[in-house]
Amino acid sequence: MTAFVANAEAARTARMLCRDGLIAPTAGMAPGFTQCNMISLPRDWAWDFLLYAQRNPKPCPVLDVSDPGSHSTPLAPGADLRRDLPLYRVWRNGALAEEVADATQVWAEHADLVTFLIGCSFTFETPLMQAGIEMRHIAQGCNVPMYRTNRPCRSAGRLSGPMVVSMRPIPAERVAEAAMISGRFPAVHGAPVHVGAPEALGITDLSRPDFGDPVEVRTGEVPVFWACGVTPQAAVMASNVPFAITHAPGHMFITDIPDRNWQV
Amino acid sequence: MTAFVANAEAARTARMLCRDGLIAPTAGMAPGFTQCNMISLPRDWAWDFLLYAQRNPKPCPVLDVSDPGSHSTPLAPGADLRRDLPLYRVWRNGALAEEVADATQVWAEHADLVTFLIGCSFTFETPLMQAGIEMRHIAQGCNVPMYRTNRPCRSAGRLSGPMVVSMRPIPAERVAEAAMISGRFPAVHGAPVHVGAPEALGITDLSRPDFGDPVEVRTGEVPVFWACGVTPQAAVMASNVPFAITHAPGHMFITDIPDRNWQV
Repeated sequence: MTAFVANAEAARTARMLCRDGLIAPTAGMAPGFTQCNMISLPRDWAWDFLLYAQRNPKPCPVLDVSDPGSHSTPLAPGADLRRDLPLYRVWRNGALAEEVADATQVWAEHADLVTFLIGCSFTFETPLMQAGIEMRHIAQGCNVPMYRTNRPCRSAGRLSGPMVVSMRPIPAERVAEAAMISGRFPAVHGAPVHVGAPEALGITDLSRPDFGDPVEVRTGEVPVFWACGVTPQAAVMASNVPFAITHAPGHMFITDIPDRNWQV
Repeated sequence: MTAFVANAEAARTARMLCRDGLIAPTAGMAPGFTQCNMISLPRDWAWDFLLYAQRNPKPCPVLDVSDPGSHSTPLAPGADLRRDLPLYRVWRNGALAEEVADATQVWAEHADLVTFLIGCSFTFETPLMQAGIEMRHIAQGCNVPMYRTNRPCRSAGRLSGPMVVSMRPIPAERVAEAAMISGRFPAVHGAPVHVGAPEALGITDLSRPDFGDPVEVRTGEVPVFWACGVTPQAAVMASNVPFAITHAPGHMFITDIPDRNWQV
């Protein structure tokens, strides 16, 4: 990033609402400010994860990495990563153990957690909507649908797993434009990885997403798939990672960084 | 990257020439194929370096990271990272110890070297030249000039140091176009970090680069500065890193990946 805005009041307000107990998907909140996927891992797993992210930059574009034990980030000065997301997932031995609205207590189990903030496709939803392309999950007031695919990520150390994608139905005549607009944001997943033909990704039923909520796909629309920052959670499951804290899918960390900072 | 080309013969030929003893800057060699900066560090330093790169993505865009002890890369199947660059630098306790054309022997000093391949601005020189913008160092048959700046990188663990930039003189009326063309290649340094006003970067004399060769800046031309993959070498010096092997500035590793794979 090259510039912080003077006034990120909308982003701070959204974080404070989450800190005070709001539990809701963050798509559409504080529009224009970058939202992030999050994963915290013990220091011993940090190298494997950073390498996994480097080797899979489409699903895992890293925007910040904390020092071990830190729960702050220069992407949002004053924020507390343990409390300012609306909903967290706690993972033990590769399985979802619980969802919590405040991760302070579970965070304290490990003194050396390294936290990764990963770009989120919500960042390019604003320019897509500005171009008149409806984001169906926002129109429907639900979470974006996400699917585990049959595409393996490139493994790193002890980490492997499939790529997860998010899906937005796009009118056929706007698909190329959606690809070009999102493609200018490579730091937040960039261009789609797949357009149409969900079966080729191993997705048999669009109405039953693995994460998030189903959305209507209308006649004349094509399901467009973007690499998704839930991919690290799929790796946690596939790799039997002993301990991790992540955001709950769709419940992101809202930063003070303007979306436009990622545009190339 | 999404696709390897069927025929990377020009890249392989260039690597073989280097393996067989050719010592020369690689700008202009195997045009259209991605060239990389290289740094190999003992495993104990790999986390600090990968974090340093993540925190400084303009000078240090990581294109591949090897497994410890490996000297191969999927960016160029069959290549030997110990031999296929034209010239290497060996660093001991933060100081340049020697330059060698074959690093096999010095590589064997450490069994756990992790090798980072970092994007190089030579990648966008091809589209710049295709747009009719002369690359002065190629026209002059010399190495690109590089300068240590007064801009500190964001530190990571034991690593800190200044940003290094490469400079190309561009006619004033083409500067905007050069910025836009290179900006579409964020994986290989992307848009310039600075246009004109070298003194603001702490560069007092363009004719005395810290690395590479000076080039002529003509009337009506502006010095344009791009973040440079020699930045890791500046960090090795500033941080007193005990051992590292790098490419010699301008003497890059040539991969089989087409430049266009990095364009967004």
